[in-house]
Amino acid sequence: MTIVTLMTDFGLKDGNVGVMKGVILGMAPHTQIVDLSHLILPQNVREAALILARSAPYFPPETIHIVVVDPGVGTTRRPLAARLGTQRFVGPDNGVITLLLEYAEKQGWPLEFVHLDKPQFWLPEVSNVFHGRDIFSPVAAHLANGKTLQAVGAPITDPVRLALPTPHHTPTGLCGEVIHIDHFGNVASNIRVEHLAEWLSAPEKLSVHLSGAEIHGVVKTFGDRAPGELVALLGSTGNLIVSVVNGSAAERLKTQIAEPFTVTLHD
Amino acid sequence: MTIVTLMTDFGLKDGNVGVMKGVILGMAPHTQIVDLSHLILPQNVREAALILARSAPYFPPETIHIVVVDPGVGTTRRPLAARLGTQRFVGPDNGVITLLLEYAEKQGWPLEFVHLDKPQFWLPEVSNVFHGRDIFSPVAAHLANGKTLQAVGAPITDPVRLALPTPHHTPTGLCGEVIHIDHFGNVASNIRVEHLAEWLSAPEKLSVHLSGAEIHGVVKTFGDRAPGELVALLGSTGNLIVSVVNGSAAERLKTQIAEPFTVTLHD
Amino acid sequence: MTIVTLMTDFGLKDGNVGVMKGVILGMAPHTQIVDLSHLILPQNVREAALILARSAPYFPPETIHIVVVDPGVGTTRRPLAARLGTQRFVGPDNGVITLLLEYAEKQGWPLEFVHLDKPQFWLPEVSNVFHGRDIFSPVAAHLANGKTLQAVGAPITDPVRLALPTPHHTPTGLCGEVIHIDHFGNVASNIRVEHLAEWLSAPEKLSVHLSGAEIHGVVKTFGDRAPGELVALLGSTGNLIVSVVNGSAAERLKTQIAEPFTVTLHD
Repeated sequence: MTIVTLMTDFGLKDGNVGVMKGVILGMAPHTQIVDLSHLILPQNVREAALILARSAPYFPPETIHIVVVDPGVGTTRRPLAARLGTQRFVGPDNGVITLLLEYAEKQGWPLEFVHLDKPQFWLPEVSNVFHGRDIFSPVAAHLANGKTLQAVGAPITDPVRLALPTPHHTPTGLCGEVIHIDHFGNVASNIRVEHLAEWLSAPEKLSVHLSGAEIHGVVKTFGDRAPGELVALLGSTGNLIVSVVNGSAAERLKTQIAEPFTVTLHD
Repeated sequence: MTIVTLMTDFGLKDGNVGVMKGVILGMAPHTQIVDLSHLILPQNVREAALILARSAPYFPPETIHIVVVDPGVGTTRRPLAARLGTQRFVGPDNGVITLLLEYAEKQGWPLEFVHLDKPQFWLPEVSNVFHGRDIFSPVAAHLANGKTLQAVGAPITDPVRLALPTPHHTPTGLCGEVIHIDHFGNVASNIRVEHLAEWLSAPEKLSVHLSGAEIHGVVKTFGDRAPGELVALLGSTGNLIVSVVNGSAAERLKTQIAEPFTVTLHD
Repeated sequence: MTIVTLMTDFGLKDGNVGVMKGVILGMAPHTQIVDLSHLILPQNVREAALILARSAPYFPPETIHIVVVDPGVGTTRRPLAARLGTQRFVGPDNGVITLLLEYAEKQGWPLEFVHLDKPQFWLPEVSNVFHGRDIFSPVAAHLANGKTLQAVGAPITDPVRLALPTPHHTPTGLCGEVIHIDHFGNVASNIRVEHLAEWLSAPEKLSVHLSGAEIHGVVKTFGDRAPGELVALLGSTGNLIVSVVNGSAAERLKTQIAEPFTVTLHD
């Protein structure tokens, strides 16, 4: 039984996600479908890239991830399918796989990309505005039924990659930026556990600067401080985050995506 | 493995949709349940009718669609089950099937309606306010397990139909109205591809008038214009829509449901 | 095929619920997963307790309910698994089972509790902030695969219980409080059908007082009054509620959780 995950910016009110599931289950009845998110900010490929990269490694081998955040639908942007190690991807070739691909390359996973150019694997009628239903869902169903990537498209080697910000060293520490704000208002940076490395052995010597606030020390978990306090800690995916215990840091600090997020080391 | 879809105005926070799934899976464990939408505007039978009609044709034969948008729960309105061609429906008899029924009639699909009047197919206790749990879920489970429509209710021939607005011709074109605003702020009209017919061979000669704005030409897809531009195009279900590329037309134009949406033809 | 339900305060946009499903399905592929709610107010254990108690009895035997509303994640609060009659629970030991446990005790259901203290049943790496993914999902998968409670933890007898408000008698009736406001704006109290008992034989002699409004009589269902009217009635779980027919009582009355909700009896 193959798992197919769905991530879109379609929202939950209009039935479009349900329609994709109808197409998939009609063609591949033994699929297990899992929603990753349908509340990606409209056209925000970068947010979808982040959630895909941190979610896919928790799925079993041969899972197929459909991601449809697709400002270029109906234009010349390519429809893509990919293998990244044991995980598979179907969706527009717009860079949404960038972070998962970087992770796969570090792990040395086998990679494979195809341009979906064979209409015999799509719905008979393809609209100009809903390729999630008309191309990506039927292709994923064919893959779930055992078709290979090469069967459904022509090999390519140049998938689109996003240019994403990376943290850089400063005289006193590291300068990164805000890359995600979650449902709780936790503010995540692109500074990761591997950037901090040996500094984490003395977490009380670190300070985080965000939106005009300075937070001393890096704690282990929310409950290490009193409700209402600002804290810095490592989130569940290894990124450095700022939170308010039982509250919303984003609301408290009026933080926005792409703001600077810096760490300094002192004695 | 039968698919059961669920559409309600229950929202997602209170657990009521989950309870319906518990009832269905307890009685018919091999069912695949798919959510169509639980964010139908409260008591808005017309919105649910639209989403049902455009979604159901993408589901495999023998799918059962439960739709519970039910201002009349606990009163004399009838509980209904229906067959519309290969698709089945279970829910209150309040007109929510109107558009799917019109489509089925055009296709010449076989039709069948029953009044759900046999309490032996319901939960033992039936509340006055949650027939989705107590009547419609167990009836759908019995249908999924192989019961016929006639087994669970008495035949009727007069299901409730909504009186829905249809577009009319004007000296210069067509006058319709706004019937749906989606998650992206795309504004859909009841003017459909079949109303426009031969006019679509010269889409640059059409203009759309909506909420004080005039849009020249009908494009093929969003990416045909620059981000931020107002465009008119055919949506994925064949309805004429107005959008802002990578933005929200409804927000830009302050458009509301039921506003006039007109098309004119010029030289 | 075992059912696993999920209830969290994670929201729906960040992919965390999907990741939990990936972990569960990777370990126990034949599980059916049902979402109860992911919109519990952040850290609101009491709201989750209410929804768990009213939902669990509608699920088939051996269902496993994972509830992760977990302000104490990463601190010394215990991870817990429990059997309450035919239903099973996995989640933090923070009192979220209180109401279901009280119900189970009244029914005389067998009870069993274990402290999840065996890391061999967790993911290899456990973060300090996401035990839903790293502890509770894999433990639920082991239970779904046939492990007993005793296999995954050490027996305990003192699960945390919340101190929840109960209604008390007054000279003229009953004084309770508001415990839930649903998606429609229906306001539910902790006054239940069993508290009202014989009074319900003369529902026209009851008055409900809420947020400055007085509502005469208790009706059977919404449709018994005209749209826009305030009504009092028994909700689908046996609690006394106040509603506006086809509208929102919470919005009309500006009602908040924990406000007084009283019933008086007159001649």
